[in-house]
Amino acid sequence: MQKAVLVVMGSDSDFPVMEPCLKTLDSFQIPYQVRICSAHRSPAAAARLAQNAAGDGFSVIIAAAGLAAHLPGVIAAWTSLPVIGVPIKTGALAGQDALLAIVQMPAGIPVATVAIDGAANAAILAVQILAIASPGLQTRLAEHKAALAASVAERQDRLDKKIAERV
Amino acid sequence: MQKAVLVVMGSDSDFPVMEPCLKTLDSFQIPYQVRICSAHRSPAAAARLAQNAAGDGFSVIIAAAGLAAHLPGVIAAWTSLPVIGVPIKTGALAGQDALLAIVQMPAGIPVATVAIDGAANAAILAVQILAIASPGLQTRLAEHKAALAASVAERQDRLDKKIAERV
Amino acid sequence: MQKAVLVVMGSDSDFPVMEPCLKTLDSFQIPYQVRICSAHRSPAAAARLAQNAAGDGFSVIIAAAGLAAHLPGVIAAWTSLPVIGVPIKTGALAGQDALLAIVQMPAGIPVATVAIDGAANAAILAVQILAIASPGLQTRLAEHKAALAASVAERQDRLDKKIAERV
Amino acid sequence: MQKAVLVVMGSDSDFPVMEPCLKTLDSFQIPYQVRICSAHRSPAAAARLAQNAAGDGFSVIIAAAGLAAHLPGVIAAWTSLPVIGVPIKTGALAGQDALLAIVQMPAGIPVATVAIDGAANAAILAVQILAIASPGLQTRLAEHKAALAASVAERQDRLDKKIAERV
Amino acid sequence: MQKAVLVVMGSDSDFPVMEPCLKTLDSFQIPYQVRICSAHRSPAAAARLAQNAAGDGFSVIIAAAGLAAHLPGVIAAWTSLPVIGVPIKTGALAGQDALLAIVQMPAGIPVATVAIDGAANAAILAVQILAIASPGLQTRLAEHKAALAASVAERQDRLDKKIAERV
Amino acid sequence: MQKAVLVVMGSDSDFPVMEPCLKTLDSFQIPYQVRICSAHRSPAAAARLAQNAAGDGFSVIIAAAGLAAHLPGVIAAWTSLPVIGVPIKTGALAGQDALLAIVQMPAGIPVATVAIDGAANAAILAVQILAIASPGLQTRLAEHKAALAASVAERQDRLDKKIAERV
Amino acid sequence: MQKAVLVVMGSDSDFPVMEPCLKTLDSFQIPYQVRICSAHRSPAAAARLAQNAAGDGFSVIIAAAGLAAHLPGVIAAWTSLPVIGVPIKTGALAGQDALLAIVQMPAGIPVATVAIDGAANAAILAVQILAIASPGLQTRLAEHKAALAASVAERQDRLDKKIAERV
Amino acid sequence: MQKAVLVVMGSDSDFPVMEPCLKTLDSFQIPYQVRICSAHRSPAAAARLAQNAAGDGFSVIIAAAGLAAHLPGVIAAWTSLPVIGVPIKTGALAGQDALLAIVQMPAGIPVATVAIDGAANAAILAVQILAIASPGLQTRLAEHKAALAASVAERQDRLDKKIAERV
Repeated sequence: MQKAVLVVMGSDSDFPVMEPCLKTLDSFQIPYQVRICSAHRSPAAAARLAQNAAGDGFSVIIAAAGLAAHLPGVIAAWTSLPVIGVPIKTGALAGQDALLAIVQMPAGIPVATVAIDGAANAAILAVQILAIASPGLQTRLAEHKAALAASVAERQDRLDKKIAERV
Repeated sequence: MQKAVLVVMGSDSDFPVMEPCLKTLDSFQIPYQVRICSAHRSPAAAARLAQNAAGDGFSVIIAAAGLAAHLPGVIAAWTSLPVIGVPIKTGALAGQDALLAIVQMPAGIPVATVAIDGAANAAILAVQILAIASPGLQTRLAEHKAALAASVAERQDRLDKKIAERV
Repeated sequence: MQKAVLVVMGSDSDFPVMEPCLKTLDSFQIPYQVRICSAHRSPAAAARLAQNAAGDGFSVIIAAAGLAAHLPGVIAAWTSLPVIGVPIKTGALAGQDALLAIVQMPAGIPVATVAIDGAANAAILAVQILAIASPGLQTRLAEHKAALAASVAERQDRLDKKIAERV
Repeated sequence: MQKAVLVVMGSDSDFPVMEPCLKTLDSFQIPYQVRICSAHRSPAAAARLAQNAAGDGFSVIIAAAGLAAHLPGVIAAWTSLPVIGVPIKTGALAGQDALLAIVQMPAGIPVATVAIDGAANAAILAVQILAIASPGLQTRLAEHKAALAASVAERQDRLDKKIAERV
Repeated sequence: MQKAVLVVMGSDSDFPVMEPCLKTLDSFQIPYQVRICSAHRSPAAAARLAQNAAGDGFSVIIAAAGLAAHLPGVIAAWTSLPVIGVPIKTGALAGQDALLAIVQMPAGIPVATVAIDGAANAAILAVQILAIASPGLQTRLAEHKAALAASVAERQDRLDKKIAERV
Repeated sequence: MQKAVLVVMGSDSDFPVMEPCLKTLDSFQIPYQVRICSAHRSPAAAARLAQNAAGDGFSVIIAAAGLAAHLPGVIAAWTSLPVIGVPIKTGALAGQDALLAIVQMPAGIPVATVAIDGAANAAILAVQILAIASPGLQTRLAEHKAALAASVAERQDRLDKKIAERV
Repeated sequence: MQKAVLVVMGSDSDFPVMEPCLKTLDSFQIPYQVRICSAHRSPAAAARLAQNAAGDGFSVIIAAAGLAAHLPGVIAAWTSLPVIGVPIKTGALAGQDALLAIVQMPAGIPVATVAIDGAANAAILAVQILAIASPGLQTRLAEHKAALAASVAERQDRLDKKIAERV
Repeated sequence: MQKAVLVVMGSDSDFPVMEPCLKTLDSFQIPYQVRICSAHRSPAAAARLAQNAAGDGFSVIIAAAGLAAHLPGVIAAWTSLPVIGVPIKTGALAGQDALLAIVQMPAGIPVATVAIDGAANAAILAVQILAIASPGLQTRLAEHKAALAASVAERQDRLDKKIAERV
């Protein structure tokens, strides 16, 4: 599996929000490439990137954008790969505009939308998609699920301490 | 003035909402062309249309779209002509999604947004823009403004009758 | 490919909204199974269905729900398969509640959310996911994309007639 | 009365928001237990906790959650005890998503929803429910109501001082 | 158990929305009384009704209201019985105003809020509250839960027929 | 008292919504005048109307408007009479735009806003304002309040019949 | 004129928001009284305060509240004096809940609503109402309007300096 | 081209938000004038300013306002020049009120609305409008578009560094 996931964002200023996406992909050992790309500032480059993505060996695209967030939908218009959209919390409307501009796609061209600033979940969704054809990834996802359940016990311990300290 | 305004909509099903736009352009004798174009179904055609608009002699573009309305912003990305966006009231959110997806454009690429289903106002705004270099259109806009004011007297007459009938 | 997609909805009253999903899966010749399942009325059955889905040979799950729509998220909690959520427009808030209850999943458990009542797009997204490991489906998706672009010309014809009739 | 109220939250990070709930239960001398539990990370544990709650002697469950808040509804699906839901203010939508995801439950499975971050009121509601069969708690609730009314006089005094200082 | 639940609504025009509440109480054989009462038109009567409710033998109050829905909160101000609030879908905002005006109660005086037009769930919540001290009601609630789960099978049958007819 | 209230609306099409306002003023025998006036179509006439209102003997102005409702605020800018604003439910946003455009006035120029389509309440508010200097109106308002309370008994009768018919 | 305006707020913590109201009343030399009062914590006191307000010589009531803001409406239910409501920005919804809970009053009982945190405008509206029977206040309101217009020139000076400094 | 653009704002406190508008006009060497003007505090001056704008040689007006933002619409009522409206993020609703109060103009009087706090885009839109009759400006707009596309490469470099540093 080479360059499985293409991660696209509009600006390097989105990096802090999207870092959990990259970390999660790292933790699953998924190879990825990160590209700056704007539906508005560089529409030709965005179109090329999306058109070439399948040929370049990518299987899934993650696209993050804020405000009138067109990037995920524009990329989806130029490729048949599954596109995961991450609405970014920015501006006066705190990502509500981005959520609607990404999720409310018209019939024919879907974008798989995750929560506002849901960068980590975008990565997990990409892994789940890649895992369909990869028993190895399926095993790692099962471990991830077990780890989530296990984390509840740790949180219970921390909570018990906080409550005990309260007395 | 030849083919001054390019009117773009995603589907012929948008025609009833956009007809007041065409009628208003007609009433100001503005030549226009109407094109079906989708940011998602036909992105290459949309890009070409927008890139060629200035060379084809258009001065203003009006683009209407509903849901995650990307068409006005995508067109604005490919041209430097002023783009007027009309959010269309459709779907579960009644155009609120389209309004945000059109008006909340990031810095660098504006879309001149009018009201949800504001097709007539899109046309008037286009006329106002064209009128900057056309004393004839300025005169017609002044007449239009006078007609708006005059219509208030007619409405008063109709209201007086309704109130009188009430007794 | 046997029973590739599991389509889950809360009630048979959701069928009219979800029928475009089934039709689209049919058009791509994707085998699927449709199950009634409720996160609230039959939580044990929902958990079993989700836990067994991978073992039963499903690769993708589509779950539709309205109001405080928990079904997609609950299913995602019990499986590592990719889960596509369809918010259904019902009740006083017209699906806005369902959209938020589906898309705003906490970190760790994603749901790939499509538009309110976006049943057809849920199916296309499922096909895109399945296509990663299926060159045949990739070809059919390319044909689908070409058909979308071609439909624009038909719409232009219909629009031209409407405009011509107007005179 | 032993372990009357089961308080459930998704993480120990919710503790500061939920502490007024515990303090209020303390002030009414209601025995309670606090458990970390997630509808998404530990669905099996959540189901067990809810299923066993009545048998374990609990009479009321308080469940707090943010974002696509499924915990109260999932617990309500597995028990017939009254479940009080507390939407937590977190994320880009400041708890509006949690409010809708908790209160808009479909017919058959109610969740008694209080205000966003309304932890203290969740406790008082639990006390009101327990008081139906407890004359002692009814007396304490009457005292609490009298104390609320009395606090108005103290606030008037503080306000009078602020106004006087203003001159 | 005599007159266990007091159901209050602002007008007889609310009856169609609240009828599922009465039917559900009937199905659980809960005795109730229905009173018209307005926080705004008859504040003195509302205060008296609430103040006397406990003494009159009621254990739970259900209050329904639309628009700037004050009735549930005003009743809660005058009694320590648990008050269940039902926001009614009416007016330009379709119940969103009523939901916020009922659920966002300040600390000290809770209202147990159910979904917009959630009349049936208000009744079930009242039954759950009454069941704490009634093993008989606990049994009936368990039967109700089993019936909900069983209804899923019926819905599956109906769906299977709809799908079969489709061919 | 001559021509005490000036009622202003943007078009005779607003008459059905505003008729309860006129009827209520009639029932209190308040003399009024109804004028069509638009902040946008006839700004000069609106300014004149507002500037002359006090000199013409009016004591209160009621102004109704929909969409980006500027009329109440514009009138308030040109007069020091109290201005009551009625947001009209029209367009895609059902009066939510009008409510915000009327109520959110900046410091210095208030508009006394009533509910969306709250025409009758605008009239009652005007009567309450006029009653400050009119013991006769105070008596009629007291009678109105008593009638509101009395109407509750009638509604109870109607409800009792509906419930009785149900059996 | 003695004690012309009764200003009511739920807590002394509302004082900072309401101070502009008192300052504005001071600047117009309007005598007023400020009372802490809660629709929920002290409903009997609130009812008495409202019922006695006219007899105590007040002509206008200003009531401020946040969250599920019932205070203005409850006071309006117990008096026929004009009641001005000030929604306070507090809690997760930043006053949107308070705005709707105050402005959306049902027919029969109006509340004259001003902007969220619009304390100064509440005072000006009260002055406008009192001015109907007071030529002296009319003069002061005219001076206030002139001062507002004059302040524009000062702001222009400050702006010119800012622009000049920019070079 | 002399004094091509008239920039209007309600107060010098709007200057920080509007400064990017002035900087952008500077960068395109567009001559402009900045005027303080309020639809509410100085309606006569606002009317005069708008009425004289065309005669004073202006071609486009940019008007910024917050809250119940009437300034752009009021100016549009008094002129036939194209008016660009900038909703300002201020107050409890963070500019959502201003957006709706500006964009939802009734038929006949459009305002070309840009994003909340979209000051730079207002300037670019003005340049696009002026460029229709100015080949020089068209060239500069083409350069601006090229610069936007080029900035993507710089952002890619910065991102690559951030990712490299992460290891």
